[in-house]
Amino acid sequence: MPTGKPDWIAVDWGTSHLRVWPMAGDVVLARLESDKGMGRLTPDAFEDVLVTLLGNWLNRAEAPIDVLVCGMAGARQGWREAPYQAVPSKVPARGIPVPVRDARLAVTILPGMSQAKPADVMRGEETQIGGFLRSEPAFDGVLCLPGTHTKWVHISAEEVVSFRTFMTGELFDLLSRQSVLRFSVGDGWDDDAFATAVSDAMGRPAALSAELFGIRAGSLLDGTAEGAARARLSGLLIGAELAAARPYWLGQEVVILGEGGMAEAYRGALASLGATVRCVPVEGATLAGLIAARKAT
Amino acid sequence: MPTGKPDWIAVDWGTSHLRVWPMAGDVVLARLESDKGMGRLTPDAFEDVLVTLLGNWLNRAEAPIDVLVCGMAGARQGWREAPYQAVPSKVPARGIPVPVRDARLAVTILPGMSQAKPADVMRGEETQIGGFLRSEPAFDGVLCLPGTHTKWVHISAEEVVSFRTFMTGELFDLLSRQSVLRFSVGDGWDDDAFATAVSDAMGRPAALSAELFGIRAGSLLDGTAEGAARARLSGLLIGAELAAARPYWLGQEVVILGEGGMAEAYRGALASLGATVRCVPVEGATLAGLIAARKAT
Repeated sequence: MPTGKPDWIAVDWGTSHLRVWPMAGDVVLARLESDKGMGRLTPDAFEDVLVTLLGNWLNRAEAPIDVLVCGMAGARQGWREAPYQAVPSKVPARGIPVPVRDARLAVTILPGMSQAKPADVMRGEETQIGGFLRSEPAFDGVLCLPGTHTKWVHISAEEVVSFRTFMTGELFDLLSRQSVLRFSVGDGWDDDAFATAVSDAMGRPAALSAELFGIRAGSLLDGTAEGAARARLSGLLIGAELAAARPYWLGQEVVILGEGGMAEAYRGALASLGATVRCVPVEGATLAGLIAARKAT
Repeated sequence: MPTGKPDWIAVDWGTSHLRVWPMAGDVVLARLESDKGMGRLTPDAFEDVLVTLLGNWLNRAEAPIDVLVCGMAGARQGWREAPYQAVPSKVPARGIPVPVRDARLAVTILPGMSQAKPADVMRGEETQIGGFLRSEPAFDGVLCLPGTHTKWVHISAEEVVSFRTFMTGELFDLLSRQSVLRFSVGDGWDDDAFATAVSDAMGRPAALSAELFGIRAGSLLDGTAEGAARARLSGLLIGAELAAARPYWLGQEVVILGEGGMAEAYRGALASLGATVRCVPVEGATLAGLIAARKAT
């Protein structure tokens, strides 16, 4: 049952998830969740999905209620395209208004960030970064945001200086579920197999697509366990990424915005390389970033 | 309409294709084709698929007719597992008999090849190699067999000495059709974009998963054409492969067993690196390999 009267709605709308928080100032009144991510919606479907998920919360607020959205809802295939803000840049940036049919809503989508050279983009992570900087404004170092598209972000003087995206998470999902490796990769994990794979890939990153096939061959010829194969797949992809991202993490203080298995895998690999690294929960950072953006408008 | 009386049947049964040739000695009587590759079949479905595809050809032959099969039909998930033959080794090797219900058939599946270190396997390519060596027995050099799982094979003294598999083709298919890059990669091709990408990836192969995401960013920020994005995706993957496969092709005579777009992409990239390279059609090699295996039994 809803309790309290919201004065705005915070929304994190990614490719595969939707999280909504009815808010009273800085106070979270509720947390609503749906699997109706941007990837499953056409532009005209967003408003109905949001209204349905909010349900009675909308009737408890004074209309129109401000709805502040970050993430892929602002992509070209999303609800409405919100132009990128080019780095170097501070966050948050001003959002763009979204026309709606329901008079109870006043929706704003926050822009993503872009980089001209090398060409790169982010949507949603800029808000997580803004939330992290709200709690640690003096941070000077590197953020790693593991995910479908892992981001490495150089922060200095409260600005995003540069960033680089790696498709590591998406490659892991595609390879483990849809490639020939799906016959070899299963549940479970093997720390040693992961560490060996990180080391192998960092030493010879070019051989990645041969080492990947080697996982299949290893399970056929040597009976590699499914968990060890899973850990090796993850280790090879993360190891190749760490080799390329070395200029980001070498000699820097690294903060991983994330929790759970993937963040822990990055943390372990970076620690084994001598990096100073800690993890910060990402959902709190997202919400803090939306609150910061709300205050800046 | 069938003509002639077959005395054996040659079969190339891969993951995604099935090709069948009713044969009279070395003479091809017909070419039958189906999309019922091993990847779509359970073990008990192979016999029916073959009998249906052969149709009247089976009734024109004296029963039982020898059916010689190469390819993924011999895999663990295939019709019946045919053990690997370990390298170094000559081809063809002796096949294993397959129990059948239809008394008109006498089926044999040829073994694949395996390598202990680095762990690697092939199924089907060994027969193509055997076919190539039937026409060029004195060949001493390297074969490149582009495909879903591209093989680099070192041949010397009529033996397969070593080989290495790269998942390049499967990565291209997954990334262009199912990843976020599907929004950027479309029809068409751009030779310059391909050449630049090969060079970029060879120079810095570790950055592959970042350069891949850069294709998406480039199309969002710079409006990269779909054909140029397609060529860049192919060039990055092939360039990283060529960097890792350098010990295979450097200073060697390279023969590409293949034709069409993918073989041409490899040929162009290798030629630009100064390799001596030519293409040989692969289907003729497959058939020649099956004929050679038939004569060896």
